[in-house]
Amino acid sequence: MTSTLSPTDRSSVRRHRDRQRSDRAELHAVLDEALVAHLGRVVDGEPVVLPTMHARVGDTLYLHGSSGAASLRGGEPVCVTVTLIDGLVYARRWFTHSANYRSAVVRGHARKVTDPDEAMTALRALVAHVAPGQEDHAAAPTRKEMAATSVIAVDLTEASVKARTGPPGDGDAVAEGDARWAGVVRLETRVAEVTTCPALPEDTPVPAHVPAVEK
Amino acid sequence: MTSTLSPTDRSSVRRHRDRQRSDRAELHAVLDEALVAHLGRVVDGEPVVLPTMHARVGDTLYLHGSSGAASLRGGEPVCVTVTLIDGLVYARRWFTHSANYRSAVVRGHARKVTDPDEAMTALRALVAHVAPGQEDHAAAPTRKEMAATSVIAVDLTEASVKARTGPPGDGDAVAEGDARWAGVVRLETRVAEVTTCPALPEDTPVPAHVPAVEK
Repeated sequence: MTSTLSPTDRSSVRRHRDRQRSDRAELHAVLDEALVAHLGRVVDGEPVVLPTMHARVGDTLYLHGSSGAASLRGGEPVCVTVTLIDGLVYARRWFTHSANYRSAVVRGHARKVTDPDEAMTALRALVAHVAPGQEDHAAAPTRKEMAATSVIAVDLTEASVKARTGPPGDGDAVAEGDARWAGVVRLETRVAEVTTCPALPEDTPVPAHVPAVEK
Repeated sequence: MTSTLSPTDRSSVRRHRDRQRSDRAELHAVLDEALVAHLGRVVDGEPVVLPTMHARVGDTLYLHGSSGAASLRGGEPVCVTVTLIDGLVYARRWFTHSANYRSAVVRGHARKVTDPDEAMTALRALVAHVAPGQEDHAAAPTRKEMAATSVIAVDLTEASVKARTGPPGDGDAVAEGDARWAGVVRLETRVAEVTTCPALPEDTPVPAHVPAVEK
Protein backbone atom coordinates (compact mmCIF):
# COMPACT_ATOMS: atom_id res chain seq x y z
CA MET A 1 0.00 0.00 0.00
CA THR A 2 1.36 3.42 -0.82
CA SER A 3 1.86 6.07 1.81
CA THR A 4 -0.76 8.22 0.12
CA LEU A 5 -4.41 7.82 0.94
CA SER A 6 -6.47 7.23 -2.18
CA PRO A 7 -9.93 8.21 -1.11
CA THR A 8 -12.78 7.03 -3.22
CA ASP A 9 -15.52 9.45 -4.07
CA ARG A 10 -17.32 8.23 -0.95
CA SER A 11 -14.44 8.93 1.38
CA SER A 12 -13.47 12.31 -0.02
CA VAL A 13 -13.91 15.26 2.25
CA ARG A 14 -16.81 17.31 0.93
CA ARG A 15 -16.45 20.45 3.00
CA HIS A 16 -13.28 22.37 3.82
CA ARG A 17 -11.18 20.44 1.31
CA ASP A 18 -8.17 22.39 2.53
CA ARG A 19 -8.45 20.40 5.72
CA GLN A 20 -8.08 17.06 4.01
CA ARG A 21 -4.79 15.26 4.54
CA SER A 22 -3.45 12.66 2.19
CA ASP A 23 -0.66 11.03 4.10
CA ARG A 24 -1.24 7.47 5.25
CA ALA A 25 1.17 8.10 8.13
CA GLU A 26 -1.19 10.80 9.36
CA LEU A 27 -4.13 8.36 9.26
CA HIS A 28 -2.08 5.91 11.30
CA ALA A 29 -1.05 8.61 13.79
CA VAL A 30 -4.63 9.74 14.41
CA LEU A 31 -5.87 6.18 14.88
CA ASP A 32 -2.94 5.35 17.15
CA GLU A 33 -3.36 8.40 19.39
CA ALA A 34 -7.12 8.16 19.88
CA LEU A 35 -8.27 6.16 22.91
CA VAL A 36 -11.79 5.55 21.66
CA ALA A 37 -13.43 5.00 18.29
CA HIS A 38 -17.05 5.47 17.30
CA LEU A 39 -18.46 2.55 15.35
CA GLY A 40 -21.40 3.25 13.07
CA ARG A 41 -23.73 0.53 11.84
CA VAL A 42 -27.12 0.38 10.19
CA VAL A 43 -29.69 -1.49 12.28
CA ASP A 44 -33.21 -1.85 10.90
CA GLY A 45 -32.42 0.91 8.40
CA GLU A 46 -31.36 3.40 11.05
CA PRO A 47 -27.92 4.50 12.21
CA VAL A 48 -26.44 3.32 15.50
CA VAL A 49 -23.14 4.74 16.78
CA LEU A 50 -21.42 3.16 19.77
CA PRO A 51 -18.05 3.83 21.37
CA THR A 52 -15.53 1.03 21.16
CA MET A 53 -11.88 0.35 21.77
CA HIS A 54 -9.71 -0.07 18.71
CA ALA A 55 -6.17 -0.84 17.63
CA ARG A 56 -4.32 -0.68 14.37
CA VAL A 57 -1.99 -3.37 13.05
CA GLY A 58 -0.47 -2.26 9.75
CA ASP A 59 -3.40 -1.30 7.55
CA THR A 60 -6.01 -3.20 9.51
CA LEU A 61 -8.16 -1.73 12.26
CA TYR A 62 -9.32 -4.12 14.94
CA LEU A 63 -12.34 -3.54 17.16
CA HIS A 64 -13.48 -5.16 20.32
CA GLY A 65 -15.46 -4.28 23.36
CA SER A 66 -18.90 -3.64 24.74
CA SER A 67 -19.65 -1.83 21.58
CA GLY A 68 -22.00 -3.79 19.48
CA ALA A 69 -18.85 -4.96 17.74
CA ALA A 70 -19.51 -8.39 19.19
CA SER A 71 -22.87 -8.54 17.44
CA LEU A 72 -21.54 -7.46 14.05
CA ARG A 73 -22.12 -9.86 11.25
CA GLY A 74 -19.30 -10.47 8.83
CA GLY A 75 -19.64 -8.39 5.67
CA GLU A 76 -21.74 -5.70 7.28
CA PRO A 77 -20.93 -2.12 6.19
CA VAL A 78 -19.41 -0.06 9.00
CA CYS A 79 -17.96 3.39 9.54
CA VAL A 80 -15.34 3.83 12.25
CA THR A 81 -14.51 7.41 13.21
CA VAL A 82 -11.98 8.76 15.67
CA THR A 83 -11.57 12.40 16.62
CA LEU A 84 -8.89 14.22 18.59
CA ILE A 85 -9.76 17.70 19.85
CA ASP A 86 -6.48 19.62 19.99
CA GLY A 87 -7.84 23.04 20.84
CA LEU A 88 -10.71 25.48 20.84
CA VAL A 89 -10.62 28.41 18.46
CA TYR A 90 -11.88 31.59 20.11
CA ALA A 91 -12.79 33.92 17.26
CA ARG A 92 -14.26 37.40 16.96
CA ARG A 93 -17.56 36.20 15.57
CA TRP A 94 -19.74 33.27 16.60
CA PHE A 95 -19.63 32.26 12.95
CA THR A 96 -15.85 31.78 12.89
CA HIS A 97 -15.56 29.77 16.11
CA SER A 98 -14.09 26.36 15.51
CA ALA A 99 -12.01 23.60 16.98
CA ASN A 100 -8.52 22.48 16.11
CA TYR A 101 -8.86 18.76 15.61
CA ARG A 102 -7.73 15.69 13.74
CA SER A 103 -10.23 13.09 12.68
CA ALA A 104 -10.15 9.86 10.73
CA VAL A 105 -13.15 8.30 9.03
CA VAL A 106 -12.79 4.67 7.97
CA ARG A 107 -15.48 3.06 5.85
CA GLY A 108 -15.48 -0.60 5.07
CA HIS A 109 -17.01 -3.93 5.81
CA ALA A 110 -16.70 -5.78 9.08
CA ARG A 111 -14.71 -8.98 8.89
CA LYS A 112 -15.10 -11.44 11.78
CA VAL A 113 -11.66 -12.61 12.80
CA THR A 114 -11.79 -16.40 13.03
CA ASP A 115 -8.11 -17.31 12.78
CA PRO A 116 -6.85 -17.81 16.36
CA ASP A 117 -3.41 -16.37 15.61
CA GLU A 118 -4.88 -13.22 14.06
CA ALA A 119 -7.33 -12.90 16.97
CA MET A 120 -4.46 -13.16 19.47
CA THR A 121 -2.44 -10.56 17.54
CA ALA A 122 -5.44 -8.24 17.51
CA LEU A 123 -6.18 -8.64 21.22
CA ARG A 124 -2.53 -8.03 22.07
CA ALA A 125 -2.65 -4.85 19.98
CA LEU A 126 -5.91 -3.75 21.66
CA VAL A 127 -4.33 -4.05 25.12
CA ALA A 128 -1.05 -2.44 24.02
CA HIS A 129 -2.92 0.43 22.37
CA VAL A 130 -4.54 1.78 25.53
CA ALA A 131 -2.16 0.35 28.13
CA PRO A 132 1.28 -0.10 26.59
CA GLY A 133 3.30 -2.71 28.46
CA GLN A 134 0.25 -4.50 29.78
CA GLU A 135 0.37 -6.91 26.85
CA ASP A 136 3.39 -8.45 28.62
CA HIS A 137 2.50 -7.65 32.26
CA ALA A 138 -1.00 -9.11 32.12
CA ALA A 139 -2.05 -12.65 31.26
CA ALA A 140 -3.04 -13.51 27.70
CA PRO A 141 -6.54 -14.94 27.18
CA THR A 142 -7.33 -18.51 28.10
CA ARG A 143 -9.06 -20.70 25.56
CA LYS A 144 -12.35 -19.99 27.35
CA GLU A 145 -11.77 -16.24 27.26
CA MET A 146 -10.91 -16.44 23.56
CA ALA A 147 -14.16 -18.28 22.90
CA ALA A 148 -16.05 -15.48 24.67
CA THR A 149 -14.30 -12.81 22.62
CA SER A 150 -15.34 -11.41 19.28
CA VAL A 151 -12.81 -9.50 17.20
CA ILE A 152 -13.72 -7.51 14.13
CA ALA A 153 -11.32 -6.29 11.44
CA VAL A 154 -11.81 -3.38 9.06
CA ASP A 155 -9.33 -2.69 6.27
CA LEU A 156 -7.95 0.84 6.10
CA THR A 157 -8.46 1.01 2.36
CA GLU A 158 -11.21 3.59 2.31
CA ALA A 159 -10.26 6.21 4.84
CA SER A 160 -9.98 9.96 5.06
CA VAL A 161 -8.22 12.22 7.51
CA LYS A 162 -9.22 15.77 8.22
CA ALA A 163 -7.52 18.31 10.42
CA ARG A 164 -7.71 21.94 11.41
CA THR A 165 -4.76 23.74 12.96
CA GLY A 166 -3.79 27.34 13.58
CA PRO A 167 -5.32 30.61 14.69
CA PRO A 168 -8.85 31.91 14.18
CA GLY A 169 -9.79 32.45 10.54
CA ASP A 170 -11.01 36.00 11.07
CA GLY A 171 -7.67 37.72 11.78
CA ASP A 172 -8.31 40.24 9.00
CA ALA A 173 -10.82 41.87 11.36
CA VAL A 174 -7.87 43.42 13.24
CA ALA A 175 -6.90 45.55 10.23
CA GLU A 176 -10.54 46.66 10.12
CA GLY A 177 -10.29 47.98 13.67
CA ASP A 178 -11.59 45.02 15.67
CA ALA A 179 -9.33 44.93 18.75
CA ARG A 180 -11.17 42.10 20.52
CA TRP A 181 -9.03 39.28 21.84
CA ALA A 182 -9.10 36.09 19.85
CA GLY A 183 -6.88 33.06 19.95
CA VAL A 184 -6.56 29.36 20.56
CA VAL A 185 -7.01 27.42 23.78
CA ARG A 186 -4.88 24.31 23.32
CA LEU A 187 -6.09 21.19 25.11
CA GLU A 188 -4.30 18.02 26.06
CA THR A 189 -5.15 14.79 27.80
CA ARG A 190 -3.00 14.04 30.80
CA VAL A 191 -2.64 11.40 33.46
CA ALA A 192 -4.22 12.94 36.55
CA GLU A 193 -3.97 10.06 39.04
CA VAL A 194 -2.76 6.48 39.27
CA THR A 195 -4.73 4.37 41.76
CA THR A 196 -3.67 0.90 42.84
CA CYS A 197 -6.43 -1.74 42.91
CA PRO A 198 -7.86 -1.77 46.46
CA ALA A 199 -7.56 -5.56 46.54
CA LEU A 200 -3.75 -5.17 46.56
CA PRO A 201 -1.49 -4.04 49.42
CA GLU A 202 -1.23 -0.26 49.20
CA ASP A 203 2.56 -0.39 48.85
CA THR A 204 2.48 -2.65 45.80
CA PRO A 205 5.06 -1.06 43.48
CA VAL A 206 3.66 0.50 40.34
CA PRO A 207 5.52 -0.99 37.35
CA ALA A 208 7.63 1.31 35.19
CA HIS A 209 5.43 0.85 32.13
CA VAL A 210 2.44 2.45 33.88
CA PRO A 211 2.34 6.15 32.99
CA ALA A 212 3.15 8.55 35.81
CA VAL A 213 0.99 11.48 36.81
CA GLU A 214 1.73 14.44 34.53
CA LYS A 215 1.93 17.83 36.17
CA MET B 1 -40.18 15.53 31.08
CA THR B 2 -39.31 13.48 34.14
CA SER B 3 -35.82 13.26 35.49
CA THR B 4 -35.72 9.56 34.69
CA LEU B 5 -34.73 8.34 31.27
CA SER B 6 -37.35 6.09 29.77
CA PRO B 7 -35.44 4.16 27.20
CA THR B 8 -37.36 2.40 24.55
CA ASP B 9 -36.40 -1.12 23.64
CA ARG B 10 -34.12 0.36 20.97
CA SER B 11 -32.23 2.60 23.33
CA SER B 12 -31.79 0.10 26.15
CA VAL B 13 -28.28 -0.98 26.90
CA ARG B 14 -27.90 -4.55 25.75
CA ARG B 15 -24.57 -5.44 27.31
CA HIS B 16 -23.35 -4.66 30.84
CA ARG B 17 -26.78 -3.57 32.02
CA ASP B 18 -25.20 -2.70 35.37
CA ARG B 19 -23.50 0.16 33.54
CA GLN B 20 -26.75 1.75 32.42
CA ARG B 21 -27.74 4.96 34.18
CA SER B 22 -31.27 6.21 34.35
CA ASP B 23 -30.94 9.76 35.53
CA ARG B 24 -31.75 12.46 33.01
CA ALA B 25 -29.34 14.77 34.85
CA GLU B 26 -26.55 12.33 34.06
CA LEU B 27 -27.47 12.41 30.36
CA HIS B 28 -27.34 16.19 30.45
CA ALA B 29 -24.00 16.18 32.29
CA VAL B 30 -22.34 13.86 29.76
CA LEU B 31 -23.62 15.87 26.80
CA ASP B 32 -22.59 19.14 28.44
CA GLU B 33 -19.07 18.00 29.30
CA ALA B 34 -18.20 16.45 25.93
CA LEU B 35 -16.52 18.76 23.41
CA VAL B 36 -17.37 16.69 20.37
CA ALA B 37 -20.23 14.47 19.26
CA HIS B 38 -20.26 11.76 16.63
CA LEU B 39 -23.21 11.99 14.27
CA GLY B 40 -24.31 8.80 12.55
CA ARG B 41 -26.42 8.80 9.40
CA VAL B 42 -27.36 6.28 6.76
CA VAL B 43 -26.19 7.29 3.28
CA ASP B 44 -27.01 4.97 0.38
CA GLY B 45 -27.78 2.24 2.88
CA GLU B 46 -24.40 2.46 4.61
CA PRO B 47 -23.39 4.11 7.87
CA VAL B 48 -21.47 7.39 7.94
CA VAL B 49 -20.15 8.80 11.23
CA LEU B 50 -18.74 12.32 11.37
CA PRO B 51 -17.55 14.45 14.26
CA THR B 52 -19.57 17.55 14.98
CA MET B 53 -19.98 20.25 17.58
CA HIS B 54 -23.10 20.07 19.70
CA ALA B 55 -24.93 21.90 22.46
CA ARG B 56 -27.88 21.07 24.65
CA VAL B 57 -30.74 23.43 25.44
CA GLY B 58 -33.16 21.76 27.84
CA ASP B 59 -34.05 18.44 26.25
CA THR B 60 -33.01 19.39 22.76
CA LEU B 61 -29.61 18.68 21.25
CA TYR B 62 -28.43 21.09 18.57
CA LEU B 63 -25.81 20.27 15.96
CA HIS B 64 -23.83 22.40 13.62
CA GLY B 65 -20.51 22.35 11.90
CA SER B 66 -18.48 20.84 9.13
CA SER B 67 -20.11 17.59 9.97
CA GLY B 68 -22.52 16.59 7.34
CA ALA B 69 -25.08 18.12 9.68
CA ALA B 70 -25.56 20.86 7.13
CA SER B 71 -26.60 18.32 4.51
CA LEU B 72 -29.07 16.51 6.76
CA ARG B 73 -32.60 16.40 5.48
CA GLY B 74 -35.36 17.01 7.95
CA GLY B 75 -36.88 13.81 9.28
CA GLU B 76 -33.80 11.73 8.63
CA PRO B 77 -32.96 9.15 11.35
CA VAL B 78 -29.75 9.99 13.19
CA CYS B 79 -27.73 8.69 16.11
CA VAL B 80 -25.61 11.15 18.08
CA THR B 81 -23.07 9.65 20.46
CA VAL B 82 -20.68 11.33 22.87
CA THR B 83 -18.05 9.58 24.94
CA LEU B 84 -15.85 10.75 27.79
CA ILE B 85 -12.85 8.59 28.65
CA ASP B 86 -12.22 9.07 32.36
CA GLY B 87 -9.53 6.48 32.86
CA LEU B 88 -7.81 3.33 31.70
CA VAL B 89 -8.30 0.15 33.68
CA TYR B 90 -5.06 -1.81 34.00
CA ALA B 91 -6.11 -5.35 34.92
CA ARG B 92 -4.32 -8.63 35.54
CA ARG B 93 -5.62 -10.23 32.40
CA TRP B 94 -5.95 -8.87 28.86
CA PHE B 95 -9.55 -9.99 29.04
CA THR B 96 -10.42 -7.72 31.98
CA HIS B 97 -8.81 -4.56 30.64
CA SER B 98 -11.32 -1.79 30.22
CA ALA B 99 -11.85 1.93 30.31
CA ASN B 100 -13.69 4.07 32.79
CA TYR B 101 -16.00 6.15 30.67
CA ARG B 102 -19.34 7.85 30.34
CA SER B 103 -21.21 7.76 27.08
CA ALA B 104 -24.54 8.99 25.82
CA VAL B 105 -26.32 7.61 22.77
CA VAL B 106 -29.15 9.71 21.38
CA ARG B 107 -31.38 8.30 18.65
CA GLY B 108 -33.94 10.37 16.89
CA HIS B 109 -34.83 12.23 13.76
CA ALA B 110 -33.10 15.35 12.50
CA ARG B 111 -35.23 18.45 12.56
CA LYS B 112 -34.05 21.41 10.47
CA VAL B 113 -34.31 24.53 12.59
CA THR B 114 -36.08 27.16 10.49
CA ASP B 115 -37.32 29.56 13.15
CA PRO B 116 -34.75 32.42 13.34
CA ASP B 117 -35.17 32.83 17.11
CA GLU B 118 -34.59 29.14 17.77
CA ALA B 119 -31.62 29.15 15.37
CA MET B 120 -30.09 32.11 17.22
CA THR B 121 -30.65 30.40 20.59
CA ALA B 122 -29.00 27.24 19.26
CA LEU B 123 -25.99 29.05 17.81
CA ARG B 124 -25.52 30.97 21.04
CA ALA B 125 -25.58 27.66 22.93
CA LEU B 126 -23.11 26.10 20.49
CA VAL B 127 -20.61 28.91 21.08
CA ALA B 128 -21.20 28.95 24.84
CA HIS B 129 -20.79 25.18 25.03
CA VAL B 130 -17.18 25.06 23.84
CA ALA B 131 -16.10 28.61 24.66
CA PRO B 132 -18.16 29.92 27.58
CA GLY B 133 -18.27 33.71 27.63
CA GLN B 134 -17.63 34.00 23.91
CA GLU B 135 -21.36 34.20 23.25
CA ASP B 136 -21.12 37.74 24.68
CA HIS B 137 -17.53 38.60 23.75
CA ALA B 138 -17.89 37.71 20.08
CA ALA B 139 -20.29 39.12 17.52
CA ALA B 140 -23.58 37.35 16.84
CA PRO B 141 -24.24 36.24 13.26
CA THR B 142 -25.23 38.71 10.60
CA ARG B 143 -28.24 37.98 8.44
CA LYS B 144 -25.87 36.73 5.75
CA GLU B 145 -24.05 34.42 8.18
CA MET B 146 -27.39 33.10 9.43
CA ALA B 147 -28.43 32.33 5.86
CA ALA B 148 -25.21 30.35 5.40
CA THR B 149 -25.78 28.38 8.61
CA SER B 150 -27.70 25.16 9.01
CA VAL B 151 -28.82 24.10 12.49
CA ILE B 152 -30.22 20.68 13.27
CA ALA B 153 -32.20 19.71 16.37
CA VAL B 154 -32.60 16.25 17.86
CA ASP B 155 -34.96 15.63 20.76
CA LEU B 156 -33.46 13.88 23.78
CA THR B 157 -36.44 11.56 24.08
CA GLU B 158 -34.72 8.36 23.10
CA ALA B 159 -31.36 8.38 24.82
CA SER B 160 -29.28 6.09 26.97
CA VAL B 161 -26.30 6.74 29.20
CA LYS B 162 -23.71 4.17 30.08
CA ALA B 163 -20.79 4.48 32.45
CA ARG B 164 -18.03 2.42 33.99
CA THR B 165 -16.24 3.54 37.14
CA GLY B 166 -14.00 1.93 39.72
CA PRO B 167 -11.11 -0.50 39.92
CA PRO B 168 -10.34 -3.50 37.71
CA GLY B 169 -12.96 -6.23 37.83
CA ASP B 170 -10.49 -9.01 38.54
CA GLY B 171 -9.48 -8.08 42.12
CA ASP B 172 -10.42 -11.55 43.34
CA ALA B 173 -7.20 -12.76 41.69
CA VAL B 174 -5.27 -11.30 44.64
CA ALA B 175 -6.83 -13.79 47.07
CA GLU B 176 -5.81 -16.50 44.61
CA GLY B 177 -2.17 -15.43 44.89
CA ASP B 178 -1.84 -13.06 41.92
CA ALA B 179 0.35 -10.24 43.26
CA ARG B 180 0.65 -8.38 39.96
CA TRP B 181 -0.02 -4.64 40.07
CA ALA B 182 -3.35 -3.55 38.70
CA GLY B 183 -5.19 -0.27 38.99
CA VAL B 184 -6.66 2.71 37.24
CA VAL B 185 -4.89 5.46 35.31
CA ARG B 186 -7.23 8.43 35.57
CA LEU B 187 -7.17 10.86 32.64
CA GLU B 188 -8.30 14.42 32.34
CA THR B 189 -8.39 17.07 29.67
CA ARG B 190 -6.61 20.26 30.58
CA VAL B 191 -5.81 23.61 29.06
CA ALA B 192 -2.17 23.33 28.00
CA GLU B 193 -1.61 26.70 26.31
CA VAL B 194 -3.47 29.88 25.42
CA THR B 195 -2.19 31.58 22.26
CA THR B 196 -3.25 35.03 21.16
CA CYS B 197 -4.15 35.43 17.48
CA PRO B 198 -0.97 36.55 15.65
CA ALA B 199 -2.95 39.34 13.93
CA LEU B 200 -3.29 41.06 17.34
CA PRO B 201 -0.63 42.94 19.33
CA GLU B 202 1.13 40.38 21.54
CA ASP B 203 0.18 42.26 24.71
CA THR B 204 -3.56 42.19 24.01
CA PRO B 205 -5.05 41.26 27.38
CA VAL B 206 -6.67 37.84 27.56
CA PRO B 207 -10.23 38.28 28.85
CA ALA B 208 -11.16 36.70 32.18
CA HIS B 209 -13.63 34.28 30.60
CA VAL B 210 -10.89 32.55 28.63
CA PRO B 211 -9.68 29.53 30.62
CA ALA B 212 -6.19 29.77 32.05
CA VAL B 213 -3.48 27.16 31.57
CA GLU B 214 -3.97 24.37 34.11
CA LYS B 215 -0.84 23.03 35.75
